[in-house]
Amino acid sequence: MARWEPGARERLVLAAVDLFNEQGYDATTVVQIAERAGVTKSTFFRHFPDKRSVLAAGQETLSRAFAAGIAEAPAGAGPLDAVAAGLERVSASMGPLNRELAPRLRAAVAANAELQEHTALKTVGLAAAVTAALVARGVPDPVAALAGELGTLAFKRGFAEWSEGDRAAHDDLSRYTLAALADLRVATAALG
Amino acid sequence: MARWEPGARERLVLAAVDLFNEQGYDATTVVQIAERAGVTKSTFFRHFPDKRSVLAAGQETLSRAFAAGIAEAPAGAGPLDAVAAGLERVSASMGPLNRELAPRLRAAVAANAELQEHTALKTVGLAAAVTAALVARGVPDPVAALAGELGTLAFKRGFAEWSEGDRAAHDDLSRYTLAALADLRVATAALG
Repeated sequence: MARWEPGARERLVLAAVDLFNEQGYDATTVVQIAERAGVTKSTFFRHFPDKRSVLAAGQETLSRAFAAGIAEAPAGAGPLDAVAAGLERVSASMGPLNRELAPRLRAAVAANAELQEHTALKTVGLAAAVTAALVARGVPDPVAALAGELGTLAFKRGFAEWSEGDRAAHDDLSRYTLAALADLRVATAALG
Repeated sequence: MARWEPGARERLVLAAVDLFNEQGYDATTVVQIAERAGVTKSTFFRHFPDKRSVLAAGQETLSRAFAAGIAEAPAGAGPLDAVAAGLERVSASMGPLNRELAPRLRAAVAANAELQEHTALKTVGLAAAVTAALVARGVPDPVAALAGELGTLAFKRGFAEWSEGDRAAHDDLSRYTLAALADLRVATAALG
C-alpha cells in the first residue's frame, strides 16, 4: 500500500520555494505548489496545513535533533561541549537538498516581510529548544540561556557558510557549525 | 495649530492591546481601535499604517536608543561595557506606560501566532542593531555578534523582571537590565 508517494514532501518544498521566488509569496497558492510538484491538492494537505508551513518543514526535526544530541552528550560534558554534540547531530541530519534549497529560500525570505517574521520565530524557537535541552541536563540559568544563544548562532553561521559559495559536494555541515562554535567560544574571552 | 492630539498615539496603543486581549487579534479592526481610543480612523492612520504596526510602536526607538548608547560609550570601553552603556540609555527611555502595557502585551502575543512571529522579528532585529552598533565601534566579528546576543538577552530578561510582579513604582529599568548583563557576564565563565 503506497499511499504516501516517496519524495512528494521534498518535491512540494522545492516547488513552493521556486514559486515564491518566481511570482512572490503572496501570489502563490497551494494549488500552484501542488501542480508544480506533480501531486494533488489533497496530497499537499497530507503533508502541510498551509503554504507557510512548507517553509517550516524540517524546523521541528532540526530542534529535536539538536536537543537529542545535547541529551546524549557524556554526563561530564560542559555546556558548550553538550552544544557541540547537538551541533554534530543536527548537522548530520542536513543533506544536499538543504544545501540546494538554502540560497533560494534566502531569496524568498528577503523579498517578503511575513516570511521574515516566520524565519525569526524559527531562530527564537531553536534557541529556546537548545536552552531547554541544557536545562534538562542540569545546566543552571542563565548559563543555559547563554549557551542556547551560542548554539543557535553557531548553527546559523555554520549553515550560512556551508550553503554559500562553492563548497565541495562532500563537505560536511558539521565542519562549519563546529568551527563557528569554536570561534564563538574564543570570542567569549574578548567580551571585556 | 493642534493638528496632532497629544497622547493619541499612546491611547491607540493601549486601546489596541486591550482589544486584542478582549476579542482576539484577528477579530480586531482599525476602526474599533480608533473608536476605543476616542480618535478618528484618519488619526489612526497618521500614527500607524496598520493594526500590526501598533505593536511595533517604540521598537525602532528602542533599537536606536540602544545603538546610540553604544556609540557614545568611552573609546576604551570593551564590548560588554559598551553594551551596558546601551542598556542604560534604552532603559531610561522606558517609563510607566511600558510597564503598564507589558503584561497585557504578553497575553495578546501568547494568544496569537502572527503576533509571536512579529515579536520574534523584533528580538532578532534588536540583536542585529546592537551587533551593528558594536561593529561600527570596531568590535570584530564574531565578538560583536556574541555581544549583540548578550545585550538582547540582558534587555529581555531585565525587562521581563521589571514588568512582572509588584515592583516599586520608582524602580528604574536599568537596575534590572544591568543586573541581567552582569549575570550573563559571569555565566560566560561557566560555559566550559
